[in-house]
Amino acid sequence: MSGAEFSPFCPAFRRAVEIVGRRWTGAIVRALLSGVTRFSDLGAAIPGLSDRLLSERLKELEDEGIVERQVIPEKPVRIEYHLTEKGEDLAEVVTAVSHWADRWAAAEAGAPAGS
Amino acid sequence: MSGAEFSPFCPAFRRAVEIVGRRWTGAIVRALLSGVTRFSDLGAAIPGLSDRLLSERLKELEDEGIVERQVIPEKPVRIEYHLTEKGEDLAEVVTAVSHWADRWAAAEAGAPAGS
Repeated sequence: MSGAEFSPFCPAFRRAVEIVGRRWTGAIVRALLSGVTRFSDLGAAIPGLSDRLLSERLKELEDEGIVERQVIPEKPVRIEYHLTEKGEDLAEVVTAVSHWADRWAAAEAGAPAGS
Repeated sequence: MSGAEFSPFCPAFRRAVEIVGRRWTGAIVRALLSGVTRFSDLGAAIPGLSDRLLSERLKELEDEGIVERQVIPEKPVRIEYHLTEKGEDLAEVVTAVSHWADRWAAAEAGAPAGS
């Protein structure tokens, strides 16, 4: 856990942390990791997230190669969102952030949301 | 790595991932973890980060209990920024994001920054 292992700056790190930490994005990735696949279920799982922003974030995640949109030819057509291999690979990040949040949540209880 | 370990939504997770992933914040935490402590060195370590935003983000990190500002009574007065225990504990998150970025950086090479 020594800091000596990190270089002071890494552009790939900066880019990655800001993709995942963008407003709502981490929450969407977590919901997908937990097995939620449908647009309406994603919206229902994440309190406060509007359909417009969910749609926007899913599109961004598609553009990043993190999410795959699947059209299932039923009647009516069903659309599902799944993590790609790159997206599934974020499980380690979600785990690390969850651990940190669990360890330090007590100190933050009652504090207003940061965004 | 199975997604079954995650609940679909966790407010503490959402809050934490958006604190760390806020624009520049992850990069600042990484620089602090690597041992950089002075304002001007932090600014120099992170390309594109203005003094105004560095100052704003450091204040936010102080408010979150992640960073501690130390005034060292020399002439001229020296100000240092250090991670608190809560901040040092983000090493696991930075490591996880760095691993993910390293694994998938090839696929992203040449893509414009996301923010």
